[in-house]
Amino acid sequence: MTVTITAFERSPDGGRGLARDTRVRWALEEVGQPYEVRLVSFRAMKEPAHLALHPFGQIPTYEEGDLALFETGAIVLHIARHHAGLLPDDAHARARAIAWMFAALNTVEPPILDLAIARILEGDKPWTGERLPLVEDRIRVRLGQLSAHLGAADWLDGAFSAADLMMVSVLLRLRSSGLLDEYPNLAAYVARGEARPAYKRAFAAQLAVNTASQRSAD
Amino acid sequence: MTVTITAFERSPDGGRGLARDTRVRWALEEVGQPYEVRLVSFRAMKEPAHLALHPFGQIPTYEEGDLALFETGAIVLHIARHHAGLLPDDAHARARAIAWMFAALNTVEPPILDLAIARILEGDKPWTGERLPLVEDRIRVRLGQLSAHLGAADWLDGAFSAADLMMVSVLLRLRSSGLLDEYPNLAAYVARGEARPAYKRAFAAQLAVNTASQRSAD
Repeated sequence: MTVTITAFERSPDGGRGLARDTRVRWALEEVGQPYEVRLVSFRAMKEPAHLALHPFGQIPTYEEGDLALFETGAIVLHIARHHAGLLPDDAHARARAIAWMFAALNTVEPPILDLAIARILEGDKPWTGERLPLVEDRIRVRLGQLSAHLGAADWLDGAFSAADLMMVSVLLRLRSSGLLDEYPNLAAYVARGEARPAYKRAFAAQLAVNTASQRSAD
Repeated sequence: MTVTITAFERSPDGGRGLARDTRVRWALEEVGQPYEVRLVSFRAMKEPAHLALHPFGQIPTYEEGDLALFETGAIVLHIARHHAGLLPDDAHARARAIAWMFAALNTVEPPILDLAIARILEGDKPWTGERLPLVEDRIRVRLGQLSAHLGAADWLDGAFSAADLMMVSVLLRLRSSGLLDEYPNLAAYVARGEARPAYKRAFAAQLAVNTASQRSAD
């Protein structure tokens, strides 16, 4: 069955792979599921046709026959449940991998998003210089706990799973901050994720969209 | 099999039901699964025994035989998958309900958490007065979209599900802000959630812990 996802016509990150469609592309590449991409403009994202797919007017969405899904976490979980390769077979290990997916999105990502908000949305505010260290310290609390859990292991809980796909994707947002380098085992963990052939294909695919849209703008 | 969850020995919210164990209690009450509660102090939450259960040193955790889980979203999803009553039977409707669970936690809750951070952790900072309206406006964007989706419906997608349990729980955090009242259909939605007998039992159970710990402190 054809799988269609949506992605930014012009990603705000300029093709650095931080838009959330990269996470879904990565999951689809890991399981070997071909997919099509429909690009949406910022304007189209807020129009009724897209809002019917995604009530919060974001990307990515996922369509497969008469199933339509939104929310990256839910899409990756759906892909992981319906293909081999992204979740362990053992029921308990599977439940734990799902717990780590939620942890990536609900415990680790929120302070990281705060940093993006502080820098981008509030970058011109008089308080931002003084406030940034507080935001960064809240991220350090989570990174310290994650680093302590990971220790010398390659992945969060046994073999690579959708949990690692999500956690690595979340941590990648920190690359430009330098924070990741304060935790060498986390930096190595992220590098292991990026080294996976499926990640490389996903990254290249999102970059190609960006390169094409840059060209058309020139 | 015995189910044991953890909760704050002394909840920072003083028993208003906003600690995340209330969400898990609610899910267990909806499906009729009895449970035991182990209370943990702030100090114990950061000690090795608890960190082995919850790498981020938070509550709730969930133990059932030799399965141990953390992250509220994952625990509620696990409960919903293993009992009738919290997820639709139809596979597509089930996937959509899970998408709404992720939306509650990853799209709607982060700006709401920012408001708590701004008020509590940064309440004494000189910028907070000027910054709060920005934080509130980011919440309004999400509430407006959610309100538009909900319309005149009782629940997010058909019958009550774990998606509503999670979304109502997230929105309850806004009660004291007055923001919810700007969206009458969302205020009514939250009231419908609170009116459920299972929610009332969960709320009463967490309040009883708080009342007992207040008494022991007097």
